[in-house]
Amino acid sequence: MSLMAVKIIFQPSGLRGRVEEGISLLEAARQLGVDIESVCGSTEICGKCKVKIEAGYFAKFNLDSQMSHLSGLSGEERGVLTEKEIAENYRLACSTRIYGDVLVFVPEESRGKKQVVLEQGKERLFKLNPAVRKIPLEVEAATLGDLRGDFERIRDALAASCGLTKDLTIDFPVLCNLPNILRYERSKNRRITDKGMPLTKDTWNVTVTIWNNREIILVEPGLIEHCVGLAVDVGTTTVVAYLCDLKNGKVLDMDSMMNPQVRYGEDVLSRISYVMMNESGMRHMRDAIIEGINTLTCRLAEKNGFLPEDIVDVVMVFNTVMQHAALGIEPKFLGRSPFIAGVKSSMNIKARDLGIKVCQTSYVHTLPIAAGFVGADNVGVLIAEEPYREQEKIRMCIDIGTNGEIDIGNADKMLCTSCATGPALEGAQIKFGMRAAPGAIEKARIDPETIEISYKVIGQEQFYPELKTTGAKGICGSGIIDIVAELFKAGIIQSNGRFNMGLNSNRIRKGEDGKPEYVVAWAEETSIGKDITFNQADVRAVQLAKAALYVGANYLMEKLGVDCIDSIVLAGAFGNFIDRESAMVIGMIPDCDLANVVAAGNAAGDGAKLALFDVDKREEAAWIAREIEFIETAIEPDFQKRFVAAMAFPHAGDKFPHIQHLLDKIPKP
Amino acid sequence: MSLMAVKIIFQPSGLRGRVEEGISLLEAARQLGVDIESVCGSTEICGKCKVKIEAGYFAKFNLDSQMSHLSGLSGEERGVLTEKEIAENYRLACSTRIYGDVLVFVPEESRGKKQVVLEQGKERLFKLNPAVRKIPLEVEAATLGDLRGDFERIRDALAASCGLTKDLTIDFPVLCNLPNILRYERSKNRRITDKGMPLTKDTWNVTVTIWNNREIILVEPGLIEHCVGLAVDVGTTTVVAYLCDLKNGKVLDMDSMMNPQVRYGEDVLSRISYVMMNESGMRHMRDAIIEGINTLTCRLAEKNGFLPEDIVDVVMVFNTVMQHAALGIEPKFLGRSPFIAGVKSSMNIKARDLGIKVCQTSYVHTLPIAAGFVGADNVGVLIAEEPYREQEKIRMCIDIGTNGEIDIGNADKMLCTSCATGPALEGAQIKFGMRAAPGAIEKARIDPETIEISYKVIGQEQFYPELKTTGAKGICGSGIIDIVAELFKAGIIQSNGRFNMGLNSNRIRKGEDGKPEYVVAWAEETSIGKDITFNQADVRAVQLAKAALYVGANYLMEKLGVDCIDSIVLAGAFGNFIDRESAMVIGMIPDCDLANVVAAGNAAGDGAKLALFDVDKREEAAWIAREIEFIETAIEPDFQKRFVAAMAFPHAGDKFPHIQHLLDKIPKP
Repeated sequence: MSLMAVKIIFQPSGLRGRVEEGISLLEAARQLGVDIESVCGSTEICGKCKVKIEAGYFAKFNLDSQMSHLSGLSGEERGVLTEKEIAENYRLACSTRIYGDVLVFVPEESRGKKQVVLEQGKERLFKLNPAVRKIPLEVEAATLGDLRGDFERIRDALAASCGLTKDLTIDFPVLCNLPNILRYERSKNRRITDKGMPLTKDTWNVTVTIWNNREIILVEPGLIEHCVGLAVDVGTTTVVAYLCDLKNGKVLDMDSMMNPQVRYGEDVLSRISYVMMNESGMRHMRDAIIEGINTLTCRLAEKNGFLPEDIVDVVMVFNTVMQHAALGIEPKFLGRSPFIAGVKSSMNIKARDLGIKVCQTSYVHTLPIAAGFVGADNVGVLIAEEPYREQEKIRMCIDIGTNGEIDIGNADKMLCTSCATGPALEGAQIKFGMRAAPGAIEKARIDPETIEISYKVIGQEQFYPELKTTGAKGICGSGIIDIVAELFKAGIIQSNGRFNMGLNSNRIRKGEDGKPEYVVAWAEETSIGKDITFNQADVRAVQLAKAALYVGANYLMEKLGVDCIDSIVLAGAFGNFIDRESAMVIGMIPDCDLANVVAAGNAAGDGAKLALFDVDKREEAAWIAREIEFIETAIEPDFQKRFVAAMAFPHAGDKFPHIQHLLDKIPKP
Repeated sequence: MSLMAVKIIFQPSGLRGRVEEGISLLEAARQLGVDIESVCGSTEICGKCKVKIEAGYFAKFNLDSQMSHLSGLSGEERGVLTEKEIAENYRLACSTRIYGDVLVFVPEESRGKKQVVLEQGKERLFKLNPAVRKIPLEVEAATLGDLRGDFERIRDALAASCGLTKDLTIDFPVLCNLPNILRYERSKNRRITDKGMPLTKDTWNVTVTIWNNREIILVEPGLIEHCVGLAVDVGTTTVVAYLCDLKNGKVLDMDSMMNPQVRYGEDVLSRISYVMMNESGMRHMRDAIIEGINTLTCRLAEKNGFLPEDIVDVVMVFNTVMQHAALGIEPKFLGRSPFIAGVKSSMNIKARDLGIKVCQTSYVHTLPIAAGFVGADNVGVLIAEEPYREQEKIRMCIDIGTNGEIDIGNADKMLCTSCATGPALEGAQIKFGMRAAPGAIEKARIDPETIEISYKVIGQEQFYPELKTTGAKGICGSGIIDIVAELFKAGIIQSNGRFNMGLNSNRIRKGEDGKPEYVVAWAEETSIGKDITFNQADVRAVQLAKAALYVGANYLMEKLGVDCIDSIVLAGAFGNFIDRESAMVIGMIPDCDLANVVAAGNAAGDGAKLALFDVDKREEAAWIAREIEFIETAIEPDFQKRFVAAMAFPHAGDKFPHIQHLLDKIPKP
């Protein structure tokens, strides 16, 4: 027997090839790209690399005897394997050497799961273990001596090659064309020509797509190598979709659009009203978002060389109201006390029942709702950030939107709450407020000496332009927070929010309404031809919003029994852009070492991606949604008192030792 | 405390009332119509009547102490109940006496299942234990202190009151309107006015429909008392539907129609051809039968005061080709060797995925296929007739159609086969053959002395009319078998099927084609104005058909190792009408005591009804479909030889001792 003459096939992956005689099964696996777990470094003690030698197939491959193709059972193997395992031909891949052709089955628990880094945004490690996988399968052809049905034939082949149970079901629409698929009789299959495995008289080759080891959701002729999924984050304002490769854990592409439901209302409450006031409101609302998701799906698929129906798994996150409106679940009781969701558990919904244009037999998985307005998106943040894995330190996650959600805790205990921040921090209710779009002032600094301002406009390269015109149109969220913080630090507004009219600057003046205002940009600098100002009412709106967030965070700290937190994660696009120092100076977030205040990007979307790549993350989501305790702050007796105290910059009573040096510099009037 | 003052509620039925103080829980259950199993006759030894006293509810009902309302634990109870059961408040209903208000939970295993007689056709006993049941439920209303989602609230209530697990799921479309249903906000509910339970501040009342204890498929406001299902038997020619009351096991109504697919072909092979030759053939075929089933569904529902969507469970049986054509599964490989079905297992398909217009969230259950052409309808026959329950005697079930299916065996072993009988026995391929419809000759007797015939026509009252005209138009299946048998018994045709031209009668003559024929009806008696004859070719066609059946039965007996059978069941409408003696005389069925040859009516339809009334029958169907061994007769080496021998009347070699006295009387030429 010559070197390199030994043939080996690994199931259930179907990976095969010739390897050098005498090497170990583990080494052969590595050479052929089969992942087998091995913790002890081949010292034959961890038992993680258990594999099963498939005796039943020996006859088929004309193997003369089962075990003569392998090295004998070592003493170490006898120590690690049970009697039963030995009887069933289990071996340790690290200690078994190959001397003849073999067929090896790698059980689920021995399969190495790749540690992968989630691309885009914050770096996150995860195990690649998707709910949906594609299995190339050789199915015995039907004969007069073997009259099993087509489905039963596939089910038996899966049981034999992958150890899937006989309870495996098949989604009904998959059955309809199955007889043709098995026999390659579907005339128009675009992939057969290049990827079709040879059709022999004795076997049929197909690729079977299986959901959660429970249900066959697709059977394709020949060998299909791609396996793609979609993660969708439906926000009140924006919908983001990520096309993901379930074979290697890569995010292939992303795309986003304005939530088409915006035409029925800017915020969630106005959309609930629309549903309640219009007979077909629910249908309009639902159709709009489903159509939007379908547009993104088609764009992403086409751009990356797929058909939309190639997408075989979907995970969606949304805030609670968006979830109801997108799925078509009556949302009106979310707008009335006690604000009850129709369903809080995670769901698996057939794409065809939702109208999502991916593979019609695939499932859409929605993450669970933790409590009322602490929705699936916040659960997405939690499974992305995993604050519950911290053993000692206390972490706080803040997702700022029209509604703010805050989580706090560590492995011992997790609490959450939601705060009605209102839309001020997103630019609404602010005289010159606008979305984060070109022309928006996104950063600002005020010189306490001169009371002059410098600012950065989105779409402009320079932070401090000497240009005559800056093209400014308005102020977006991060700009608003900067401006308020800078007004306060320069002594232009006092701790209570009132303007200090005693300063000598033409930027501080009384507006048309007779109320004080600060001129952020002179008319000639702007592209709108009038002065962009920030006035007393704007300051008040920010005070209300930041107080709501602060009080929520404050109650959580109290209920958890801590008086300081070790780190703060700012989730959401907004969190990425705000100046952490400004946020703390105005008392929007509690005191914390600024070095430990980090932006997490679209953590909700990351959570959706992680649940797509690793099915265990769905269990983790169900667990944390159940375990995290919701604190209803509005019913606390001293809520009002605390809210008033939190209106002050940074706070009427609480200390902020980490930024005290900044506060000390503020000129006293 | 006065007599009759004790209040008792049984869960999960919700049945409640006041009973006399001091009686046993078992007696109270009987008075209130709650079925509790009791085998030992209240001697406290069988332990079948175990019930659980619901401690958790005592506070709610202002019960002062749990156990003071009941007699103490008896020694016998201590003997029967485990420590754990005692700790969990289990008691024996027969030995526990009531002295105060109690809430009792009757666990599934203690619930008595009613023995019911299936109405219509053959009398059959069954247990009423449907897959779908409706549970009236009191759900705790949401408060700021109880923020569970609507679904979770219902799930928890079901877990508490019926012991259903927390794994219970809900079909997605049910969720969409759930928030309104729970709060009675659905404006147009036709039943609330008369059946709605009072809506209180603390509880909401709904009726939950549950499928297989696994999935919520419907939630209705108030108390819904009806629970109806549909059993459908899709035949090649006829579709029959039965509306069934799942609360009491009664068949409420039935209706039938011609299978609308008939327009695409009279028999299964021509329908397979239609599907193969026409691009939209599959869709046409499927739409036709689904529309037909929907027509029957609407007619039955309306006639019985229901809406079609009140139907919450459906069981369907069909032959294998009809099953593929009705469900839309590619049937073409059923028309080619090795004749493989797309799926053989039973299926649960959402009604909405099939387009059946019943409750859209309900399931359609299809019985499994035993083998190739031994389809779900034959499995229906098996679970209705239960030959596998015979301990010693050998029973044969024969379902005669274009394709004949035969089962044989008893508790030890069951075999089945299918025979290509062809359509001759249904009147096709016979010169004056016709369906069993008004004008068809359905019975006939020939006087061996005079060679004269007397016959009965469907739609005519008298068996032997002296009327000038009989209105005969043709001959249906049972008439065909009678005529062949009578021709043979009168010596007009010989054992080999040839006409004996030596007899002196003007009824025996040569036809236009020069071949012998027998005049069954003279032109003037008929409504078609010409002689109705039965000719040599007709005899040949019957010989082929009956030989196919006989050879199938013969192989089964041989494979089972028996040379006589104890009873024969003739299933199907056809089996109801044929003369058993005639069938045996021509050798269509094997020898057997004629007293033990019985017609079973539409046993396939009965099987569907039984699977609707008793979910265990579905398990039984899956089991027998798996266990019964299919014998492929066509590949047997001596098939041709046996077939030729079986062409003779009654057979070239086999003896028929039970009808030998009849055969002895046949005039020898």
